[in-house]
Amino acid sequence: MEETRMVEIKQSVLAANDEKADGFRALLKQAGTLYTDIMASPGAGKTTLLLALIDTMRKRAQVVQAPEPKFGVIEADLESMVDAEKIKAASIPSVELNTHGVCHVEMGMVERSYEAFKQGGLTPFDYMFLENIGNLVCPAEFDTGAHNRVMLLSVPEGYDKVYKYPPMFAVVDALIVTKCDYLPLNPDFDMEALKKQASVLNPGIRIFVTSARTGEGMDELAAWFEELRANIVK
Amino acid sequence: MEETRMVEIKQSVLAANDEKADGFRALLKQAGTLYTDIMASPGAGKTTLLLALIDTMRKRAQVVQAPEPKFGVIEADLESMVDAEKIKAASIPSVELNTHGVCHVEMGMVERSYEAFKQGGLTPFDYMFLENIGNLVCPAEFDTGAHNRVMLLSVPEGYDKVYKYPPMFAVVDALIVTKCDYLPLNPDFDMEALKKQASVLNPGIRIFVTSARTGEGMDELAAWFEELRANIVK
Repeated sequence: MEETRMVEIKQSVLAANDEKADGFRALLKQAGTLYTDIMASPGAGKTTLLLALIDTMRKRAQVVQAPEPKFGVIEADLESMVDAEKIKAASIPSVELNTHGVCHVEMGMVERSYEAFKQGGLTPFDYMFLENIGNLVCPAEFDTGAHNRVMLLSVPEGYDKVYKYPPMFAVVDALIVTKCDYLPLNPDFDMEALKKQASVLNPGIRIFVTSARTGEGMDELAAWFEELRANIVK
Repeated sequence: MEETRMVEIKQSVLAANDEKADGFRALLKQAGTLYTDIMASPGAGKTTLLLALIDTMRKRAQVVQAPEPKFGVIEADLESMVDAEKIKAASIPSVELNTHGVCHVEMGMVERSYEAFKQGGLTPFDYMFLENIGNLVCPAEFDTGAHNRVMLLSVPEGYDKVYKYPPMFAVVDALIVTKCDYLPLNPDFDMEALKKQASVLNPGIRIFVTSARTGEGMDELAAWFEELRANIVK
Protein backbone atom coordinates (compact mmCIF):
# COMPACT_ATOMS: atom_id res chain seq x y z
CA MET A 1 0.00 0.00 0.00
CA GLU A 2 2.70 2.48 0.99
CA GLU A 3 4.79 1.38 -1.95
CA THR A 4 1.90 2.10 -4.30
CA ARG A 5 1.43 5.57 -2.81
CA MET A 6 5.17 6.20 -3.15
CA VAL A 7 5.14 5.19 -6.83
CA GLU A 8 2.10 7.39 -7.55
CA ILE A 9 3.65 10.45 -5.94
CA LYS A 10 6.97 9.81 -7.65
CA GLN A 11 5.23 9.64 -11.03
CA SER A 12 3.46 12.93 -10.47
CA VAL A 13 6.72 14.54 -9.31
CA LEU A 14 8.40 13.25 -12.48
CA ALA A 15 5.58 14.54 -14.70
CA ALA A 16 5.80 18.04 -13.17
CA ASN A 17 9.58 17.92 -13.59
CA ASP A 18 9.33 16.92 -17.27
CA GLU A 19 6.98 19.80 -18.02
CA LYS A 20 9.35 22.34 -16.49
CA ALA A 21 12.23 20.71 -18.37
CA ASP A 22 10.60 21.26 -21.76
CA GLY A 23 10.09 24.94 -21.00
CA PHE A 24 13.68 25.39 -19.85
CA ARG A 25 15.04 23.62 -22.94
CA ALA A 26 13.12 26.01 -25.20
CA LEU A 27 14.28 29.04 -23.20
CA LEU A 28 17.95 28.11 -23.53
CA LYS A 29 17.62 27.31 -27.23
CA GLN A 30 16.18 30.78 -27.74
CA ALA A 31 19.16 32.23 -25.85
CA GLY A 32 21.53 30.39 -28.22
CA THR A 33 22.85 28.22 -25.40
CA LEU A 34 23.67 24.54 -25.90
CA TYR A 35 22.96 22.98 -22.51
CA THR A 36 24.49 19.59 -21.64
CA ASP A 37 23.88 17.30 -18.65
CA ILE A 38 27.01 15.31 -17.70
CA MET A 39 26.41 12.15 -15.68
CA ALA A 40 28.73 9.43 -14.33
CA SER A 41 29.83 7.44 -11.30
CA PRO A 42 31.85 9.18 -8.61
CA GLY A 43 35.44 9.49 -9.72
CA ALA A 44 34.85 8.90 -13.44
CA GLY A 45 36.49 12.24 -14.16
CA LYS A 46 33.58 14.61 -14.85
CA THR A 47 35.30 17.77 -13.58
CA THR A 48 38.63 16.92 -15.19
CA LEU A 49 37.01 16.19 -18.56
CA LEU A 50 35.01 19.41 -18.39
CA LEU A 51 38.14 21.45 -17.70
CA ALA A 52 39.98 19.77 -20.59
CA LEU A 53 37.01 20.17 -22.93
CA ILE A 54 36.58 23.89 -22.22
CA ASP A 55 40.32 24.43 -22.59
CA THR A 56 40.23 22.65 -25.97
CA MET A 57 37.22 24.66 -27.14
CA ARG A 58 38.88 27.95 -26.14
CA LYS A 59 42.03 27.01 -28.09
CA ARG A 60 40.04 25.93 -31.15
CA ALA A 61 38.32 29.32 -31.19
CA GLN A 62 41.73 31.06 -31.02
CA VAL A 63 43.06 29.06 -33.95
CA VAL A 64 40.24 30.23 -36.23
CA GLN A 65 40.33 33.71 -34.65
CA ALA A 66 36.72 33.36 -33.48
CA PRO A 67 35.56 35.09 -30.28
CA GLU A 68 36.04 32.93 -27.19
CA PRO A 69 32.82 31.02 -26.44
CA LYS A 70 31.01 31.92 -23.23
CA PHE A 71 30.78 28.98 -20.82
CA GLY A 72 28.75 28.42 -17.66
CA VAL A 73 28.95 25.39 -15.37
CA ILE A 74 26.44 24.24 -12.76
CA GLU A 75 28.36 22.09 -10.28
CA ALA A 76 26.06 19.75 -8.37
CA ASP A 77 27.37 18.12 -5.22
CA LEU A 78 25.67 16.40 -2.28
CA GLU A 79 27.23 18.59 0.38
CA SER A 80 30.54 20.14 -0.60
CA MET A 81 32.03 22.64 -3.04
CA VAL A 82 35.13 20.68 -4.00
CA ASP A 83 34.38 20.58 -7.75
CA ALA A 84 32.98 24.11 -7.96
CA GLU A 85 36.26 25.44 -6.61
CA LYS A 86 38.23 23.66 -9.35
CA ILE A 87 35.97 25.20 -12.01
CA LYS A 88 36.31 28.67 -10.52
CA ALA A 89 40.08 28.30 -10.42
CA ALA A 90 39.96 27.91 -14.23
CA SER A 91 38.07 31.24 -14.61
CA ILE A 92 34.85 29.59 -15.72
CA PRO A 93 31.61 31.11 -14.38
CA SER A 94 30.03 28.51 -12.13
CA VAL A 95 27.20 28.04 -9.66
CA GLU A 96 27.46 25.62 -6.74
CA LEU A 97 24.34 23.50 -6.60
CA ASN A 98 24.21 21.75 -3.24
CA THR A 99 21.52 19.06 -3.24
CA HIS A 100 21.81 18.46 0.54
CA GLY A 101 22.06 14.73 0.15
CA VAL A 102 19.56 14.30 -2.72
CA CYS A 103 20.93 11.71 -5.17
CA HIS A 104 20.06 13.52 -8.43
CA VAL A 105 19.32 16.97 -9.86
CA GLU A 106 15.75 18.17 -10.53
CA MET A 107 14.40 21.10 -12.52
CA GLY A 108 13.76 23.37 -9.52
CA MET A 109 17.46 23.19 -8.70
CA VAL A 110 18.45 23.94 -12.31
CA GLU A 111 16.12 26.95 -12.49
CA ARG A 112 17.49 28.42 -9.26
CA SER A 113 21.06 27.91 -10.50
CA TYR A 114 20.33 29.62 -13.83
CA GLU A 115 18.63 32.49 -12.00
CA ALA A 116 21.85 32.97 -10.01
CA PHE A 117 23.82 33.22 -13.27
CA LYS A 118 21.30 35.74 -14.62
CA GLN A 119 21.41 37.89 -11.50
CA GLY A 120 25.19 37.87 -11.76
CA GLY A 121 24.85 39.27 -15.32
CA LEU A 122 26.61 36.21 -16.75
CA THR A 123 23.98 34.95 -19.21
CA PRO A 124 23.50 34.21 -22.06
CA PHE A 125 26.09 31.48 -22.50
CA ASP A 126 27.14 29.73 -25.67
CA TYR A 127 27.56 26.50 -23.74
CA MET A 128 26.15 25.58 -20.33
CA PHE A 129 27.12 22.35 -18.61
CA LEU A 130 25.50 20.66 -15.63
CA GLU A 131 27.88 18.38 -13.76
CA ASN A 132 25.32 16.06 -12.17
CA ILE A 133 25.70 14.16 -8.86
CA GLY A 134 28.17 11.26 -9.10
CA ASN A 135 25.64 8.46 -9.49
CA LEU A 136 25.18 6.07 -12.41
CA VAL A 137 21.62 5.18 -11.39
CA CYS A 138 19.21 7.89 -10.22
CA PRO A 139 20.06 10.89 -12.46
CA ALA A 140 18.99 8.86 -15.52
CA GLU A 141 15.35 9.21 -14.39
CA PHE A 142 15.26 13.00 -14.10
CA ASP A 143 15.08 15.28 -17.12
CA THR A 144 17.17 18.34 -16.24
CA GLY A 145 16.02 20.37 -19.26
CA ALA A 146 19.25 19.79 -21.17
CA HIS A 147 19.52 19.61 -24.97
CA ASN A 148 21.83 16.65 -24.75
CA ARG A 149 22.82 14.21 -22.06
CA VAL A 150 26.18 12.50 -21.90
CA MET A 151 27.64 9.89 -19.59
CA LEU A 152 31.24 9.15 -18.73
CA LEU A 153 32.64 5.70 -18.09
CA SER A 154 36.25 5.55 -16.95
CA VAL A 155 38.51 2.70 -18.03
CA PRO A 156 39.35 1.61 -14.44
CA GLU A 157 35.63 1.03 -13.76
CA GLY A 158 35.62 -1.81 -16.27
CA TYR A 159 33.90 -2.27 -19.61
CA ASP A 160 31.06 -4.53 -18.39
CA LYS A 161 28.68 -1.79 -17.24
CA VAL A 162 26.06 -1.65 -20.02
CA TYR A 163 24.04 -4.62 -18.74
CA LYS A 164 24.51 -3.54 -15.11
CA TYR A 165 23.36 0.09 -15.48
CA PRO A 166 21.11 -0.02 -18.56
CA PRO A 167 18.85 2.97 -17.72
CA MET A 168 21.80 5.38 -17.90
CA PHE A 169 23.24 3.92 -21.13
CA ALA A 170 19.74 4.03 -22.65
CA VAL A 171 18.98 7.73 -22.06
CA VAL A 172 22.22 9.42 -23.11
CA ASP A 173 23.19 10.88 -26.48
CA ALA A 174 26.85 10.09 -25.99
CA LEU A 175 29.11 7.80 -24.02
CA ILE A 176 32.48 9.35 -23.27
CA VAL A 177 35.04 6.75 -22.26
CA THR A 178 37.53 8.54 -19.98
CA LYS A 179 40.99 7.82 -18.53
CA CYS A 180 42.09 5.86 -21.61
CA ASP A 181 45.69 6.39 -20.51
CA TYR A 182 44.87 3.55 -18.05
CA LEU A 183 44.29 1.05 -20.86
CA PRO A 184 47.79 -0.50 -20.67
CA LEU A 185 47.04 -1.41 -17.02
CA ASN A 186 43.70 -2.96 -18.03
CA PRO A 187 44.36 -5.62 -20.64
CA ASP A 188 40.89 -7.05 -19.92
CA PHE A 189 39.10 -3.84 -20.89
CA ASP A 190 37.22 -4.89 -24.02
CA MET A 191 36.52 -1.60 -25.83
CA GLU A 192 34.88 -3.31 -28.80
CA ALA A 193 32.47 -5.23 -26.54
CA LEU A 194 31.59 -2.01 -24.69
CA LYS A 195 30.90 -0.18 -27.98
CA LYS A 196 28.83 -3.05 -29.29
CA GLN A 197 26.75 -3.50 -26.12
CA ALA A 198 26.12 0.25 -25.80
CA SER A 199 25.08 0.49 -29.46
CA VAL A 200 22.73 -2.48 -29.23
CA LEU A 201 20.98 -0.96 -26.19
CA ASN A 202 21.01 2.56 -27.62
CA PRO A 203 21.42 2.53 -31.42
CA GLY A 204 21.88 6.31 -31.78
CA ILE A 205 24.58 6.63 -29.14
CA ARG A 206 27.81 8.50 -30.04
CA ILE A 207 30.94 7.07 -28.45
CA PHE A 208 34.11 9.06 -27.73
CA VAL A 209 37.35 7.53 -26.45
CA THR A 210 39.28 10.11 -24.45
CA SER A 211 42.00 10.91 -21.95
CA ALA A 212 42.07 14.35 -20.36
CA ARG A 213 45.65 13.60 -19.29
CA THR A 214 47.04 12.95 -22.79
CA GLY A 215 44.46 14.98 -24.72
CA GLU A 216 43.32 11.92 -26.69
CA GLY A 217 39.90 12.40 -28.27
CA MET A 218 39.40 15.94 -26.97
CA ASP A 219 39.33 17.54 -30.43
CA GLU A 220 36.71 15.11 -31.71
CA LEU A 221 34.61 15.78 -28.61
CA ALA A 222 34.96 19.56 -28.93
CA ALA A 223 33.98 19.35 -32.61
CA TRP A 224 30.85 17.39 -31.67
CA PHE A 225 29.77 20.09 -29.19
CA GLU A 226 30.42 22.82 -31.76
CA GLU A 227 28.27 20.95 -34.27
CA LEU A 228 25.46 20.45 -31.73
CA ARG A 229 25.49 24.16 -30.93
CA ALA A 230 25.40 25.06 -34.61
CA ASN A 231 22.18 23.02 -34.86
CA ILE A 232 20.70 24.85 -31.85
CA VAL A 233 21.34 28.35 -33.17
CA LYS A 234 20.59 27.83 -36.86
CA MET B 1 2.94 19.82 -0.82
CA GLU B 2 3.89 16.82 -2.91
CA GLU B 3 7.44 17.05 -1.64
CA THR B 4 6.17 16.96 1.95
CA ARG B 5 4.03 13.90 1.26
CA MET B 6 6.99 12.21 -0.43
CA VAL B 7 9.21 12.88 2.60
CA GLU B 8 6.57 11.58 5.02
CA ILE B 9 6.06 8.36 3.11
CA LYS B 10 9.79 7.89 2.71
CA GLN B 11 10.26 8.25 6.47
CA SER B 12 7.59 5.68 7.22
CA VAL B 13 9.09 3.28 4.64
CA LEU B 14 12.50 3.76 6.27
CA ALA B 15 11.09 3.14 9.78
CA ALA B 16 9.43 -0.12 8.69
CA ASN B 17 12.67 -1.13 6.98
CA ASP B 18 14.74 -0.45 10.11
CA GLU B 19 12.46 -2.56 12.27
CA LYS B 20 12.78 -5.54 9.93
CA ALA B 21 16.54 -4.99 9.79
CA ASP B 22 16.92 -5.32 13.56
CA GLY B 23 15.04 -8.63 13.54
CA PHE B 24 17.13 -10.00 10.66
CA ARG B 25 20.39 -8.96 12.33
CA ALA B 26 19.39 -10.88 15.49
CA LEU B 27 18.36 -13.93 13.45
CA LEU B 28 21.70 -14.13 11.67
CA LYS B 29 23.67 -13.60 14.87
CA GLN B 30 21.79 -16.54 16.38
CA ALA B 31 22.71 -18.61 13.31
CA GLY B 32 26.39 -17.76 13.86
CA THR B 33 26.56 -15.81 10.60
CA LEU B 34 28.55 -12.61 10.26
CA TYR B 35 26.61 -10.60 7.68
CA THR B 36 28.32 -7.74 5.82
CA ASP B 37 26.90 -5.13 3.45
CA ILE B 38 29.44 -4.05 0.80
CA MET B 39 28.80 -0.68 -0.83
CA ALA B 40 30.69 1.35 -3.45
CA SER B 41 30.50 3.21 -6.74
CA PRO B 42 30.14 1.20 -9.94
CA GLY B 43 33.50 -0.26 -10.92
CA ALA B 44 35.21 0.17 -7.53
CA GLY B 45 35.93 -3.55 -7.53
CA LYS B 46 33.32 -5.05 -5.20
CA THR B 47 33.07 -8.43 -6.91
CA THR B 48 36.82 -8.71 -7.43
CA LEU B 49 37.56 -7.84 -3.79
CA LEU B 50 34.95 -10.32 -2.58
CA LEU B 51 36.48 -13.12 -4.67
CA ALA B 52 39.97 -12.29 -3.38
CA LEU B 53 38.76 -12.03 0.22
CA ILE B 54 36.97 -15.38 0.16
CA ASP B 55 39.98 -17.00 -1.48
CA THR B 56 42.24 -15.57 1.25
CA MET B 57 39.90 -16.72 4.02
CA ARG B 58 39.73 -20.24 2.56
CA LYS B 59 43.53 -20.42 2.43
CA ARG B 60 43.92 -19.09 5.98
CA ALA B 61 41.59 -21.83 7.22
CA GLN B 62 43.69 -24.46 5.40
CA VAL B 63 46.91 -23.19 6.99
CA VAL B 64 45.55 -23.70 10.51
CA GLN B 65 43.75 -26.89 9.44
CA ALA B 66 40.37 -25.43 10.37
CA PRO B 67 37.25 -26.45 8.45
CA GLU B 68 36.59 -24.28 5.40
CA PRO B 69 34.19 -21.46 6.33
CA LYS B 70 30.77 -21.52 4.70
CA PHE B 71 30.14 -18.43 2.56
CA GLY B 72 27.01 -17.03 0.95
CA VAL B 73 26.80 -14.01 -1.34
CA ILE B 74 23.75 -11.95 -2.28
CA GLU B 75 24.55 -10.25 -5.58
CA ALA B 76 22.39 -7.19 -6.13
CA ASP B 77 22.20 -5.73 -9.62
CA LEU B 78 19.77 -3.35 -11.32
CA GLU B 79 18.94 -5.65 -14.19
CA SER B 80 21.63 -8.17 -15.02
CA MET B 81 23.41 -11.19 -13.56
CA VAL B 82 26.94 -10.30 -14.58
CA ASP B 83 28.40 -10.33 -11.05
CA ALA B 84 26.37 -13.30 -9.82
CA GLU B 85 27.86 -15.39 -12.61
CA LYS B 86 31.42 -14.50 -11.53
CA ILE B 87 30.62 -15.54 -7.95
CA LYS B 88 29.07 -18.83 -9.08
CA ALA B 89 32.12 -19.56 -11.22
CA ALA B 90 34.19 -19.49 -8.00
CA SER B 91 31.94 -22.13 -6.40
CA ILE B 92 30.44 -19.73 -3.88
CA PRO B 93 26.73 -20.12 -3.11
CA SER B 94 25.00 -17.00 -4.38
CA VAL B 95 21.58 -15.53 -4.96
CA GLU B 96 20.90 -13.04 -7.75
CA LEU B 97 18.98 -10.10 -6.38
CA ASN B 98 17.57 -8.13 -9.27
CA THR B 99 16.22 -4.77 -8.05
CA HIS B 100 14.59 -3.95 -11.42
CA GLY B 101 16.09 -0.49 -11.54
CA VAL B 102 15.77 0.39 -7.83
CA CYS B 103 18.92 2.23 -6.74
CA HIS B 104 19.47 0.49 -3.38
CA VAL B 105 18.66 -2.73 -1.49
CA GLU B 106 15.84 -2.89 1.08
CA MET B 107 14.99 -5.48 3.74
CA GLY B 108 12.21 -7.19 1.79
CA MET B 109 14.75 -8.02 -0.94
CA VAL B 110 17.26 -9.33 1.63
CA GLU B 111 14.65 -11.54 3.31
CA ARG B 112 13.57 -13.04 -0.02
CA SER B 113 17.20 -13.71 -0.96
CA TYR B 114 17.93 -15.41 2.37
CA GLU B 115 14.77 -17.50 2.01
CA ALA B 116 16.10 -18.71 -1.36
CA PHE B 117 19.34 -19.81 0.34
CA LYS B 118 17.33 -21.60 3.05
CA GLN B 119 15.13 -23.39 0.56
CA GLY B 120 18.27 -24.50 -1.26
CA GLY B 121 19.49 -26.05 2.03
CA LEU B 122 22.55 -23.76 2.00
CA THR B 123 22.16 -21.99 5.37
CA PRO B 124 23.54 -21.41 7.97
CA PHE B 125 26.61 -19.59 6.70
CA ASP B 126 29.66 -18.52 8.65
CA TYR B 127 29.86 -15.39 6.50
CA MET B 128 27.20 -13.83 4.34
CA PHE B 129 27.96 -10.86 2.09
CA LEU B 130 25.59 -8.53 0.32
CA GLU B 131 27.11 -6.88 -2.72
CA ASN B 132 24.90 -3.80 -2.86
CA ILE B 133 23.98 -1.80 -6.00
CA GLY B 134 26.91 0.22 -7.37
CA ASN B 135 25.92 3.59 -5.92
CA LEU B 136 27.81 5.74 -3.43
CA VAL B 137 24.70 7.72 -2.46
CA CYS B 138 21.38 5.93 -1.90
CA PRO B 139 22.38 2.64 -0.22
CA ALA B 140 23.78 4.61 2.75
CA GLU B 141 20.21 5.43 3.79
CA PHE B 142 18.87 1.87 3.91
CA ASP B 143 19.68 -0.52 6.75
CA THR B 144 19.99 -3.96 5.15
CA GLY B 145 20.11 -5.83 8.46
CA ALA B 146 23.87 -6.37 8.27
CA HIS B 147 26.18 -6.61 11.30
CA ASN B 148 28.74 -4.45 9.61
CA ARG B 149 28.78 -2.17 6.61
CA VAL B 150 31.85 -1.51 4.52
CA MET B 151 32.53 0.77 1.58
CA LEU B 152 35.13 0.52 -1.14
CA LEU B 153 36.89 3.46 -2.72
CA SER B 154 39.19 2.65 -5.64
CA VAL B 155 42.38 4.63 -6.21
CA PRO B 156 41.41 5.72 -9.77
CA GLU B 157 38.27 7.42 -8.36
CA GLY B 158 40.45 9.91 -6.50
CA TYR B 159 41.01 10.56 -2.79
CA ASP B 160 38.75 13.64 -2.51
CA LYS B 161 35.47 11.81 -1.96
CA VAL B 162 34.84 12.21 1.81
CA TYR B 163 33.42 15.72 1.57
CA LYS B 164 31.55 14.88 -1.64
CA TYR B 165 29.76 11.72 -0.40
CA PRO B 166 29.66 12.20 3.38
CA PRO B 167 26.56 10.06 4.15
CA MET B 168 28.30 6.91 2.93
CA PHE B 169 31.58 7.60 4.73
CA ALA B 170 29.61 8.37 7.91
CA VAL B 171 27.62 5.11 8.14
CA VAL B 172 30.27 2.48 7.41
CA ASP B 173 32.42 0.51 9.84
CA ALA B 174 35.29 0.25 7.39
CA LEU B 175 36.69 1.96 4.33
CA ILE B 176 38.50 -0.43 2.02
CA VAL B 177 40.74 1.40 -0.44
CA THR B 178 40.96 -0.82 -3.53
CA LYS B 179 43.13 -0.99 -6.68
CA CYS B 180 46.22 0.28 -4.85
CA ASP B 181 48.33 -1.16 -7.66
CA TYR B 182 47.18 1.99 -9.53
CA LEU B 183 48.95 4.30 -7.06
CA PRO B 184 52.06 4.79 -9.24
CA LEU B 185 49.77 6.17 -11.98
CA ASN B 186 48.10 8.52 -9.47
CA PRO B 187 50.82 10.65 -7.87
CA ASP B 188 48.10 13.08 -6.71
CA PHE B 189 46.25 10.45 -4.66
CA ASP B 190 46.76 11.74 -1.12
CA MET B 191 46.22 8.64 1.05
CA GLU B 192 47.01 10.48 4.29
CA ALA B 193 44.45 13.20 3.52
CA LEU B 194 41.83 10.54 2.73
CA LYS B 195 42.52 8.71 6.00
CA LYS B 196 42.43 11.92 7.97
CA GLN B 197 39.20 13.22 6.38
CA ALA B 198 37.44 9.86 6.79
CA SER B 199 38.52 9.61 10.43
CA VAL B 200 37.39 13.15 11.25
CA LEU B 201 33.93 12.47 9.78
CA ASN B 202 33.69 8.97 11.26
CA PRO B 203 36.08 8.56 14.22
CA GLY B 204 35.55 4.78 14.60
CA ILE B 205 36.19 3.92 10.94
CA ARG B 206 38.69 1.14 10.13
CA ILE B 207 40.73 1.73 6.99
CA PHE B 208 42.27 -1.01 4.85
CA VAL B 209 44.59 -0.37 1.91
CA THR B 210 44.29 -3.21 -0.59
CA SER B 211 44.87 -4.54 -4.07
CA ALA B 212 43.08 -7.69 -5.17
CA ARG B 213 45.55 -7.92 -8.05
CA THR B 214 48.72 -8.01 -5.91
CA GLY B 215 47.14 -9.36 -2.72
CA GLU B 216 48.17 -6.29 -0.72
CA GLY B 217 46.17 -5.91 2.49
CA MET B 218 44.04 -9.03 1.96
CA ASP B 219 45.40 -10.83 5.03
CA GLU B 220 44.69 -7.87 7.31
CA LEU B 221 41.18 -7.64 5.90
CA ALA B 222 40.54 -11.37 6.30
CA ALA B 223 41.81 -11.21 9.91
CA TRP B 224 39.39 -8.37 10.63
CA PHE B 225 36.42 -10.39 9.36
CA GLU B 226 37.53 -13.40 11.41
CA GLU B 227 37.70 -11.22 14.51
CA LEU B 228 34.26 -9.72 13.84
CA ARG B 229 32.77 -13.18 13.48
CA ALA B 230 34.42 -14.35 16.71
CA ASN B 231 32.60 -11.50 18.45
CA ILE B 232 29.28 -12.54 16.89
CA VAL B 233 29.47 -16.18 17.96
CA LYS B 234 31.01 -15.79 21.40
